[in-house]
Amino acid sequence: MGHTDRRAALRAHLHTAGLDAVLVTDLLDVRYLTGFTGSNAAAVVAAEPAGDLLCTDGRYRIQAAEQCPDLEVLVDRPSAPAAAARVPAGRVLGYDSATLTVDGLAAVRDAVPGRRLRRAPGLVAALRAVKDDAEVAAVRAACELADTALLDLLAAGGLAPGRTERAVATDLEDRMRRLGAAGPGFETILAAGAHSAIPHHRPGPAELRRGDLVKIDFGAELDGYHSDTTRTFCLGPAADWQRELHALVDTAAAAGRAALADGAGTAEVDAAARGVIERAGHGAEFPHGLGHGIGLAVHEPPWLSRAGTGRIATGQVVTVEPGVYLEGRGGVRIEDTLHVVAGGPAVPLTTLPRELVEI
Amino acid sequence: MGHTDRRAALRAHLHTAGLDAVLVTDLLDVRYLTGFTGSNAAAVVAAEPAGDLLCTDGRYRIQAAEQCPDLEVLVDRPSAPAAAARVPAGRVLGYDSATLTVDGLAAVRDAVPGRRLRRAPGLVAALRAVKDDAEVAAVRAACELADTALLDLLAAGGLAPGRTERAVATDLEDRMRRLGAAGPGFETILAAGAHSAIPHHRPGPAELRRGDLVKIDFGAELDGYHSDTTRTFCLGPAADWQRELHALVDTAAAAGRAALADGAGTAEVDAAARGVIERAGHGAEFPHGLGHGIGLAVHEPPWLSRAGTGRIATGQVVTVEPGVYLEGRGGVRIEDTLHVVAGGPAVPLTTLPRELVEI
Repeated sequence: MGHTDRRAALRAHLHTAGLDAVLVTDLLDVRYLTGFTGSNAAAVVAAEPAGDLLCTDGRYRIQAAEQCPDLEVLVDRPSAPAAAARVPAGRVLGYDSATLTVDGLAAVRDAVPGRRLRRAPGLVAALRAVKDDAEVAAVRAACELADTALLDLLAAGGLAPGRTERAVATDLEDRMRRLGAAGPGFETILAAGAHSAIPHHRPGPAELRRGDLVKIDFGAELDGYHSDTTRTFCLGPAADWQRELHALVDTAAAAGRAALADGAGTAEVDAAARGVIERAGHGAEFPHGLGHGIGLAVHEPPWLSRAGTGRIATGQVVTVEPGVYLEGRGGVRIEDTLHVVAGGPAVPLTTLPRELVEI
Repeated sequence: MGHTDRRAALRAHLHTAGLDAVLVTDLLDVRYLTGFTGSNAAAVVAAEPAGDLLCTDGRYRIQAAEQCPDLEVLVDRPSAPAAAARVPAGRVLGYDSATLTVDGLAAVRDAVPGRRLRRAPGLVAALRAVKDDAEVAAVRAACELADTALLDLLAAGGLAPGRTERAVATDLEDRMRRLGAAGPGFETILAAGAHSAIPHHRPGPAELRRGDLVKIDFGAELDGYHSDTTRTFCLGPAADWQRELHALVDTAAAAGRAALADGAGTAEVDAAARGVIERAGHGAEFPHGLGHGIGLAVHEPPWLSRAGTGRIATGQVVTVEPGVYLEGRGGVRIEDTLHVVAGGPAVPLTTLPRELVEI
């Protein structure tokens, strides 16, 4: 879908939402609807297409004209109040309360004394949650690139005792860049030994040692889209507890992937994987949600968690990433990124095998 | 200053602000006050130190305990409402309306029915704007690293006709990483020929050509702090218009740096540089503010612009970056990062010479 089609899809929701126009202030939402990639912008999508506009500042005048040839570009700042002020008096203007700040709303209010402002959270986020073909292809390409980088690292003997966590993480990130990624999509988590029990450990000067579990949670950014994969390796033959822990998480991940389908409740998908871990007596050692949507943002709706509401829909791209973390000993997480399709199980976009690899 | 001292400094402002406690929701503000670096957190700083706490989720339980040994850590989510709920009933709780979202505030309100919530924007941002010695040293180290990477690139002949903008930008970023940077602190701007007239051009497949102006705006992230430097080169002997443009911007930058001193109005500093450009008839071709504070964020208060309010203070670290952009021909920007000191001109932390280099 082109940006014009995306704005049309949002426009189709305006009437239901009781809005004459919506003010878009989140930068990724703006990018999704207009193609504009600068660091300061707001957009308006109105009931009448002629009311659509992008507002940015003078640094981006040329870029905005190039990236949004089909859209009126207003150069003014601050962007959100300036864009809102172009909506005619008497209209009902929605704003995204989930991303607009309290002071941002106050500035918009001051700029549009004659308009009625209405809270309208997540309208664009809901559209973004369901990916079109080009977006799925973009996430798939990012996944393939990142996973190839990890395979290359393994083939080159890059995961070896004596290297530091930081060195291995940098090596992996360099390989992603050399394969064409804009960069890692988020800070690589590379955690060895007892550190693998820290869900979001930052790689440091610790050296990898024989016998360590090594957890690697990594992803690439490519054309603005993201991948997200986690695999946990064993340096040398696995001890029984390591093998059992890996098998448990592998089973939980499979249950989560199997439950991820059109119409499933997000809490239900979480429960499918969490139940496996709870029944093994490790429920308290899985202290995070099962997964999240991914696309222009690394983390975006839908959210798979115990407290989740809402249902999975065809077209969503979602991670499934259970983990069990034994403090002071080690942890295992296995994560894939999947595409929800009609009439069948979700299709993995990540490509790495999931068997425990002993290096 | 340690994190405890920073919280004490914030605490000292609570009484004046009419607050019993403040809820800190911006992640960099949280990091500044507590040392915690995870991706989800909120903190409370209370009139009584015993009321201080950090709230994060289960992924970060171990990390928070390690990074904040002197602070109560609450593991719950969502963080902001959970943290706010720990403030005793009847107290006045401030929140940062400049960063808290409308829905975020609503969730906090729901969680603390008995407390009085009060808008208190930018309390931590104001503290962060004035850097302590360790912070200045961190920015200086980032500046020296980044500038060294550019000198290395030049020495290696990396800025040469036939290379693409993207290749040169990647080369520079790789060099920053090899010198120890966590990465570039922002997307490198590398713009050749007519692209140099686009203030925030993204490097692309265009090849550098003899006769081009090449504008490079780049920075390193090191230990969480940032650098920001811009230099504009000429590939080959400069044409008269290129030399004149560079000299004009160089003069404007010098005027801006000279005006950057304790007590100067932020609009006054902007005007010192802008006046030079306006008197040369190019005012309309300098479409952005003169500079910004820099530290844990690449862009943070103070802001140097025509609309600026407030005054420069000793201890601030600020960029001065005038530019003139001749559409379709080329542009020049010269940027340094400077430390405002008592009783004298601001001290550059960036290290590169500013003379026009013809390569």
